[in-house]
Amino acid sequence: MSKLLLASTSTVHGGTYLSYLSTVVQEHFSGCKNIVFIPFARPGGISFDEYTAHVQKALHPWGFTVRGWHTFHSPEEACHEADGFFTGGGNSFVLLRELISTGSLPLLQEAVQKGKPYMGSSAGTNIAGLTIGTTNDMPIVHPAHLNALACIPCNINPHYQDPAPGSTHMGETREQRIAEFHVFNQQPVLGLREGSWLKVNESQIELCGPHTLRLFRHDKTPEEVPPGLLSLV
Amino acid sequence: MSKLLLASTSTVHGGTYLSYLSTVVQEHFSGCKNIVFIPFARPGGISFDEYTAHVQKALHPWGFTVRGWHTFHSPEEACHEADGFFTGGGNSFVLLRELISTGSLPLLQEAVQKGKPYMGSSAGTNIAGLTIGTTNDMPIVHPAHLNALACIPCNINPHYQDPAPGSTHMGETREQRIAEFHVFNQQPVLGLREGSWLKVNESQIELCGPHTLRLFRHDKTPEEVPPGLLSLV
Repeated sequence: MSKLLLASTSTVHGGTYLSYLSTVVQEHFSGCKNIVFIPFARPGGISFDEYTAHVQKALHPWGFTVRGWHTFHSPEEACHEADGFFTGGGNSFVLLRELISTGSLPLLQEAVQKGKPYMGSSAGTNIAGLTIGTTNDMPIVHPAHLNALACIPCNINPHYQDPAPGSTHMGETREQRIAEFHVFNQQPVLGLREGSWLKVNESQIELCGPHTLRLFRHDKTPEEVPPGLLSLV
Repeated sequence: MSKLLLASTSTVHGGTYLSYLSTVVQEHFSGCKNIVFIPFARPGGISFDEYTAHVQKALHPWGFTVRGWHTFHSPEEACHEADGFFTGGGNSFVLLRELISTGSLPLLQEAVQKGKPYMGSSAGTNIAGLTIGTTNDMPIVHPAHLNALACIPCNINPHYQDPAPGSTHMGETREQRIAEFHVFNQQPVLGLREGSWLKVNESQIELCGPHTLRLFRHDKTPEEVPPGLLSLV
């Protein structure tokens, strides 16, 4: 029953917050009034209240009421009151630690499985996968485990970047890092470029936006996949 | 008593493995014959034996005998037989997990504290700091904790990169990521550029090589520090 909108980034270069996704977001949350925002990833260390206010400002003109997950008495209440959920970007380790320590992770997971629409951007997209093991973020805190919402049967690498042509940098490329991930893990990884988003309906995953996606599967050569329905096998 | 050589990278662009550090490595390990190599970071998923053979090939011409930490009966034996240690690059999470699970971390720490020279490159340099919380690597495995060798009273970010001028990428810059680290952690972070290395003698830390270092301290503006003795306060 899951219905997800998973964006690589909240903001594309030269745009404002979520502006490039305006129509898509409104369609995704059509029929919803109350969006519960999960501000736990705290980009730049911003507070939960500040982050929620920022998102309120973006979603209010589109007819939505936004309230922060942290302002409810319990995760149960947050899930009950929500018509839909949005998890913003920031640091995936900080986000996951907070979801775990507040007991929110399994409840959010269940509410999404039962059909309440979920939207994520960046870290909020990464957390929708099986684990946060393909995040680009620094481990600035240590969550108890790396298991995430598992709304889709794969991992996501948001803000996916191709190797810079002519680079003299000796650190690993994104592709090399994901290859190392596959030495220890089996699940497919979706390299989702900025400006791309996924629409998930039950078990169907559709790539949208102007770019191809880089699909990494265990023991297979990475592939470029055009917009449209994805096959992970 | 600690004596450390901590390189940002094993290889600079256009060079071969450790070639740019040839003189420095030989001086660092002068008086040492048996170098024990710690291959746990497994770059590209390479095996412990393959990685050790690669390092043997580089260090043998300089008069050193190299044996892998994993080939000893116990971490105690590895520490006892070593005149010095070298930890190579790869994935910091994989490295730390293996150091923890084999019981090697406290023994290596003690041997280095007692004065056996230690060399690290990339992940092997990151692990010499207080925690691996400022690694660039993906969390492809989940170590029990992030605490590292703590040979120096700060964290290191190897392969440090300045924001690319004119970049349209919306993911966080290295500097932004380290600023987020300082929302949750207090220790200084050394942004160590490729081609730079640190020489540590007891409590003295010296920046060497052609580049300045970017010093990030909690609640202070980041600073460029020229080669020479470092002050962390």
